[in-house]
Amino acid sequence: MAPPTPRVVVPVDLRKKPWEQKLALHNRWHPEIPPVAEVKVGEVFRVEMADWTGGVIKDDDSAIDVKTIDFQDSTGIRILLVHYLSGPIKVVDEEGIPAKAGDLLAVEICNLGPLPGDEWGYTATFDRENGGGFLTDHFPCATKAIWYFEGIYAYSPHIPGVRFPGLTHPGIIGTAPSMELLKIWNEREREVEENGLQSLKLCEIQEGTSEWEKIATEAARTIPGRENGGNCDIKNLSRGSKIYLPVFVDGANLSTGDMHFSQGDGEVSFCGAIEMSGFLELKCEIIRGGMKEYLTPMGPTPLHVNPIFEIGPVEPRFSEWLVFEGISVDESGRQHYLDATVAYKRAVLNAIDYLSKFGYSKEQMYLLLSCCPCEGRISGIVDSPNAVATLAIPTAIFDQDIRPKTRKVPVGPRLVRNPDVLKCTYDGNLPTTKNPGATTYPPPGVLGKRQAH
Amino acid sequence: MAPPTPRVVVPVDLRKKPWEQKLALHNRWHPEIPPVAEVKVGEVFRVEMADWTGGVIKDDDSAIDVKTIDFQDSTGIRILLVHYLSGPIKVVDEEGIPAKAGDLLAVEICNLGPLPGDEWGYTATFDRENGGGFLTDHFPCATKAIWYFEGIYAYSPHIPGVRFPGLTHPGIIGTAPSMELLKIWNEREREVEENGLQSLKLCEIQEGTSEWEKIATEAARTIPGRENGGNCDIKNLSRGSKIYLPVFVDGANLSTGDMHFSQGDGEVSFCGAIEMSGFLELKCEIIRGGMKEYLTPMGPTPLHVNPIFEIGPVEPRFSEWLVFEGISVDESGRQHYLDATVAYKRAVLNAIDYLSKFGYSKEQMYLLLSCCPCEGRISGIVDSPNAVATLAIPTAIFDQDIRPKTRKVPVGPRLVRNPDVLKCTYDGNLPTTKNPGATTYPPPGVLGKRQAH
Amino acid sequence: MAPPTPRVVVPVDLRKKPWEQKLALHNRWHPEIPPVAEVKVGEVFRVEMADWTGGVIKDDDSAIDVKTIDFQDSTGIRILLVHYLSGPIKVVDEEGIPAKAGDLLAVEICNLGPLPGDEWGYTATFDRENGGGFLTDHFPCATKAIWYFEGIYAYSPHIPGVRFPGLTHPGIIGTAPSMELLKIWNEREREVEENGLQSLKLCEIQEGTSEWEKIATEAARTIPGRENGGNCDIKNLSRGSKIYLPVFVDGANLSTGDMHFSQGDGEVSFCGAIEMSGFLELKCEIIRGGMKEYLTPMGPTPLHVNPIFEIGPVEPRFSEWLVFEGISVDESGRQHYLDATVAYKRAVLNAIDYLSKFGYSKEQMYLLLSCCPCEGRISGIVDSPNAVATLAIPTAIFDQDIRPKTRKVPVGPRLVRNPDVLKCTYDGNLPTTKNPGATTYPPPGVLGKRQAH
Amino acid sequence: MAPPTPRVVVPVDLRKKPWEQKLALHNRWHPEIPPVAEVKVGEVFRVEMADWTGGVIKDDDSAIDVKTIDFQDSTGIRILLVHYLSGPIKVVDEEGIPAKAGDLLAVEICNLGPLPGDEWGYTATFDRENGGGFLTDHFPCATKAIWYFEGIYAYSPHIPGVRFPGLTHPGIIGTAPSMELLKIWNEREREVEENGLQSLKLCEIQEGTSEWEKIATEAARTIPGRENGGNCDIKNLSRGSKIYLPVFVDGANLSTGDMHFSQGDGEVSFCGAIEMSGFLELKCEIIRGGMKEYLTPMGPTPLHVNPIFEIGPVEPRFSEWLVFEGISVDESGRQHYLDATVAYKRAVLNAIDYLSKFGYSKEQMYLLLSCCPCEGRISGIVDSPNAVATLAIPTAIFDQDIRPKTRKVPVGPRLVRNPDVLKCTYDGNLPTTKNPGATTYPPPGVLGKRQAH
Repeated sequence: MAPPTPRVVVPVDLRKKPWEQKLALHNRWHPEIPPVAEVKVGEVFRVEMADWTGGVIKDDDSAIDVKTIDFQDSTGIRILLVHYLSGPIKVVDEEGIPAKAGDLLAVEICNLGPLPGDEWGYTATFDRENGGGFLTDHFPCATKAIWYFEGIYAYSPHIPGVRFPGLTHPGIIGTAPSMELLKIWNEREREVEENGLQSLKLCEIQEGTSEWEKIATEAARTIPGRENGGNCDIKNLSRGSKIYLPVFVDGANLSTGDMHFSQGDGEVSFCGAIEMSGFLELKCEIIRGGMKEYLTPMGPTPLHVNPIFEIGPVEPRFSEWLVFEGISVDESGRQHYLDATVAYKRAVLNAIDYLSKFGYSKEQMYLLLSCCPCEGRISGIVDSPNAVATLAIPTAIFDQDIRPKTRKVPVGPRLVRNPDVLKCTYDGNLPTTKNPGATTYPPPGVLGKRQAH
Repeated sequence: MAPPTPRVVVPVDLRKKPWEQKLALHNRWHPEIPPVAEVKVGEVFRVEMADWTGGVIKDDDSAIDVKTIDFQDSTGIRILLVHYLSGPIKVVDEEGIPAKAGDLLAVEICNLGPLPGDEWGYTATFDRENGGGFLTDHFPCATKAIWYFEGIYAYSPHIPGVRFPGLTHPGIIGTAPSMELLKIWNEREREVEENGLQSLKLCEIQEGTSEWEKIATEAARTIPGRENGGNCDIKNLSRGSKIYLPVFVDGANLSTGDMHFSQGDGEVSFCGAIEMSGFLELKCEIIRGGMKEYLTPMGPTPLHVNPIFEIGPVEPRFSEWLVFEGISVDESGRQHYLDATVAYKRAVLNAIDYLSKFGYSKEQMYLLLSCCPCEGRISGIVDSPNAVATLAIPTAIFDQDIRPKTRKVPVGPRLVRNPDVLKCTYDGNLPTTKNPGATTYPPPGVLGKRQAH
Repeated sequence: MAPPTPRVVVPVDLRKKPWEQKLALHNRWHPEIPPVAEVKVGEVFRVEMADWTGGVIKDDDSAIDVKTIDFQDSTGIRILLVHYLSGPIKVVDEEGIPAKAGDLLAVEICNLGPLPGDEWGYTATFDRENGGGFLTDHFPCATKAIWYFEGIYAYSPHIPGVRFPGLTHPGIIGTAPSMELLKIWNEREREVEENGLQSLKLCEIQEGTSEWEKIATEAARTIPGRENGGNCDIKNLSRGSKIYLPVFVDGANLSTGDMHFSQGDGEVSFCGAIEMSGFLELKCEIIRGGMKEYLTPMGPTPLHVNPIFEIGPVEPRFSEWLVFEGISVDESGRQHYLDATVAYKRAVLNAIDYLSKFGYSKEQMYLLLSCCPCEGRISGIVDSPNAVATLAIPTAIFDQDIRPKTRKVPVGPRLVRNPDVLKCTYDGNLPTTKNPGATTYPPPGVLGKRQAH
Repeated sequence: MAPPTPRVVVPVDLRKKPWEQKLALHNRWHPEIPPVAEVKVGEVFRVEMADWTGGVIKDDDSAIDVKTIDFQDSTGIRILLVHYLSGPIKVVDEEGIPAKAGDLLAVEICNLGPLPGDEWGYTATFDRENGGGFLTDHFPCATKAIWYFEGIYAYSPHIPGVRFPGLTHPGIIGTAPSMELLKIWNEREREVEENGLQSLKLCEIQEGTSEWEKIATEAARTIPGRENGGNCDIKNLSRGSKIYLPVFVDGANLSTGDMHFSQGDGEVSFCGAIEMSGFLELKCEIIRGGMKEYLTPMGPTPLHVNPIFEIGPVEPRFSEWLVFEGISVDESGRQHYLDATVAYKRAVLNAIDYLSKFGYSKEQMYLLLSCCPCEGRISGIVDSPNAVATLAIPTAIFDQDIRPKTRKVPVGPRLVRNPDVLKCTYDGNLPTTKNPGATTYPPPGVLGKRQAH
């Protein structure tokens, strides 16, 4: 007889706030957050999740919700209530013995998708004052685009002429850290924070009990990916993929959240995938002692490990790609030494500028490259002093031919794409970057006679 | 009537030194290096090339040639004679009018491959004293592996149990810089060099005339990729791909070299692809005024642009990938802020350690990941403080199943792979990194009872 | 604001019989079957469907339901109540004007899947007396295998060691025929039937009214694919594909059914896909006058056309295939002239025999090749007298390496796969075919000394 | 040290006739044709080959060479001098022991391509009197299109607006039959021939000796694929693929020829691939006793087997396909019972008619579908009475969007494609088929008002 329909171990009711759910969502990593459910290896189970903001961003006609999203508490300390996670889920073997520290937890994503009745998502950039995104000095305003789903496809009224199949995945999936690992995280990230590098403070979970007080004081926020997986934002963790997570506490305590309908490598606009609520159908295996057998720690303790992944077999298939390159020279012309981050930034900027020639605003393309299935590669990382990064864009997602041609870029009615992303003003004082080259081109004498045309 | 067989516009005789060739090879970028050939748009032509060292590395049983490769001149200043390039090639249109500054040169790679009689290549790491590679502090020794070609496949006697189809490409393809661009390069890279960042000095081309003296003094070395393309090491520039290069001087002056039978994203071991001699069959188009129409400068001048690429349709096809992740925390456990380079380094180290459990030395896997068709991705670049990079390895290149299993990693005869890479000792004094976690694992108390097994 | 969740225009309640549904299912093609729903172009709507037998085949431990399925009426005339279809659905444009004869109806499959709570399917062969399948003379018994779904994957307790992602699709999708087309069908198929070629009689729909009597008398059964689409069993009509159907009656009157979780090209065992109930999410466009513009009739009337299809972008991706070949020489050694059907039969038989060496019964492999994502190709159709057909099997669906090896086929515990398909005896009198070659091999003198081994 | 460059075991000089070559080519299958070369397992060797006609078809401006190609001897008996094969090649193991009857010969295609200086090919249909092709009753004229190669790509001056990468392969590769197998072939094919089914007589090899007389009398012609492989025309046998051939005589006696730059499934125009001369680089393994272990005879003797294949990893990659369907109803409207050949014919006719709407003649599309990388599938073979076959065409090979659109098919200058295939008149008396539906469409009353437009 067929196994039963996957059991819903964490239900989510979208009419309720994250903290009103039957099984409360959590938004920090801590070993003592108690499991809300238990599953057996081999069992296919279903986990539902809110979108990462827990419903703060709306399907409406304004980006004001993005601009005013509150990351600070009343004392002005920046807090982050976001990344509401479903779980933790305790995993046990056929005999009921929980996963143990030192095991590997293999989690297969059997299926996933939107929650019925909530088939939409959004991509946004935060205001520069509020953290912004990868290119926040170029794009300091809060912006938002809404995406609607038609089965496997997404399209946006704010970015016309584009449609693509999703490579849907959970942005966050991870096991609970042990106290030892949590302490490592808090210490090493404190340094970055104290140096003022735009980092975000560790902060409270809103709960009253003294036990929760303790957890809130110690817990790690969910923004970065870490040894336990977490917010790794690997866009290929979609249907049929398998994730080998290290286990640090009894039961593994698996949590997941931050569903993405689609994401580009790097998720450059920060709130940058097509963010959505959704469900996962998962199946777990326990590889006893697998941490030692398969993972080699890279750092001062045996806990300094990273998960391993297998990619699934049903990814969208593209055959034509247009590729943009960046090198580690920044917008001011300054040389950076083998810096892949600078190189990737420039590749993304190159792609935005190029695509905007086809009837789009730069903000539209920034959001698009953050959420469409584009691939960001480290192509060269040894050829001193320039790192080379590339961004490959599948041309089939556009309804026009975006390749360079010997005839001029077409102009005319088909390129009048009046809609734009929803946008707020930037009222802050942080520095922004203008591209000096863009406005003065071509300079006298460089392109000679052609200027006359 | 069929067009003639592609004309060999730059022949290479492998029995001769680079400077003895009928059309001398060059190894610097300079606008005044005179073209050695002229081609028309639409014409398919053939360019032959030496391997990047011009024949210094041999198909023999020792890595001593790699260790002793001479990058320094008699005064102790580091020079680089390598990256011998074929060209420059002047490109003209149907009426014989050359490409002009401001045009785009579209170069299609119709075909490529090894030179007949020279169907082999090598992958190597330099000695730490000699520049090393991406992981030189972990692997300070000079090492070498020889690869033999069987048509589309390569295999190495030094890394048994592995075989894969090549994604053959020229590591270097670019147009000549203008004097203005050359000056920009020399200035911005001087800073890095003067700060002592392992960079390599600009240096002489060995020629006697005063004109050559001038060129040698001013020319840029070929190591980094730059605005003109150059050593971009994009592994997907293989058969059927198309490269849109900005034109800075009359005739475009296209040069190419550094053929790779195969390369992994990042080319991590530095001498890291399967380096080979070979031929290219190319076809050019000129997009008049294309720089202005398609490229947006990103920097202080209109010359701060990057090429664009289209990927070809006959890449090797893999369906199963094992993916390793790295975050921007280094081997000492220190946090780096959204540093994709650190994250990628850790992803590569994780992969090396993992794969070495299947019967390989770490040096074998370091060379393999540098040259096999693995994909290096920037997965997350906004989730402060951790950049997340991933390295995806096609499992089909191994003759065993390298995925984690609930049963233990197999041991036994099939895993006794006695051959290793060719290796020299490291006799230098530069610091090296040990992985502190690897040796002490598992520590008492962490994995508890499982240690008893 | 996001469009609403797809409207369910045809609901199916699996606890009820096909004829008890709120909107009765139908199982014949006729222009006068009244539409049960109406949809607008551009609207995403949901259609639910029963499995093709309307629930007759059960998830149990016996194939007796397959053997005794009743295709005959009380007078002994063979009838077919199967292929219960959902619809017809009337399609109108934005202004409410229905699709017209001569238009093309473009139907996009946005999404599809099993009905919640019914995540299983079956593959079967009928008894030789009851029509059997493509290889019924070799496999005269009724057999059945149950498949369970784990998200995108299916596995069967009756065919262990195999698991694959589905390429789920509706076996049947089509528009209603006009009376003229229906008449053409009935006439041309009568001939085949009267010549006794195992065909199945046209037959009644069970309804009482005189209008239904008329329809039942005239209607065409659903077994073959025809000009209106229908049971074309094209396995690639999955998520994201688009079907251009000719319109023969006002409103198009779209019907669909016979969902398949997965199917091999040819669906060789007849009840041969993984048969299931399920849902489709569809979106329609009307191409006015599209029949004339895009389809050329091939036959005596303008109605002799066929649909066109576009394949979707998220098919499972396989890179290694083992390919079996057949030529148009039958099992008795007789030559057939360029007969692709005979060639394909032999290719399938070759594949079954080969795979059964890896621990399987032939019946297991017959059912597997009918439902796994294998590709059946017409490779050569002009090289007199042999047609060449091939069957390509993705090797990744097996948990063992099924390729030929220089070492012997492995034997031992891993290959003891005791489970088999559910099977009934064959008690009929129709002729069956034994493979004469299989039993006598190797004959004396052919392989000489090797027999001694 | 690297192994030597592949040894040329069968050289071909294109300035000479097939029978003037240093190692004479042969054009029949017979066990006693003496090997012209010997190779060891594991050795990569090179085989050169003439095009299948041995140079009769020219790169010129007329199809007269196709029309007048002489398939008959002086007495009017139809002979076929074509399919000149390179070989036979004797294969021995490391100890020099030849392959034996009952072994499997695994042949890997390491590389292949055109012969230098001969980078062109042709696609043609023969005159209906001379055998024609799959659709000869529709297209009775001799036609020819020339294709030029640009590395991996082919384009034709006779079919503008189309360009595609080749999936180059040998049309013929096979082992020598034993006398017993040869006798089986001659007997079973005689029957077809005597029934007058357009078959071609067995015929002489032009040689003088009595031994050759005997061979010529007994030998089998090369047109059909058979148990030994032969002219199987499997378009995927390209770089990196592996062919497991049964061995019937000592040494295996491998022969190969009939190189195709590209071919569509079915090779429908008969002289239908892009026919070319070329080279293969091959590597052999012997699987001792492999016939018994891996192949099951299907027929009255143990010799009734078929080869097995593995597909290589570097096939051209397409993501968008337009699919045409055919059912087993012929052009006169007559029903055929589950006849995949009729269904495929109709699918091809449908595709030709459709594509000709985009500015092409039907003859252009007939030749194109014969040689471009289109896929012919047997989709349904059990749904009585209609077989369903499909033909899938990669849309990226066209320079225009060939998909149906809600707006009309574009007309205008871009579609004026004056060039056509080279064509002769048809002067014979064999019956030809007109498509009755095409000319009378739309008939009065069927499409009603739309006719007025």
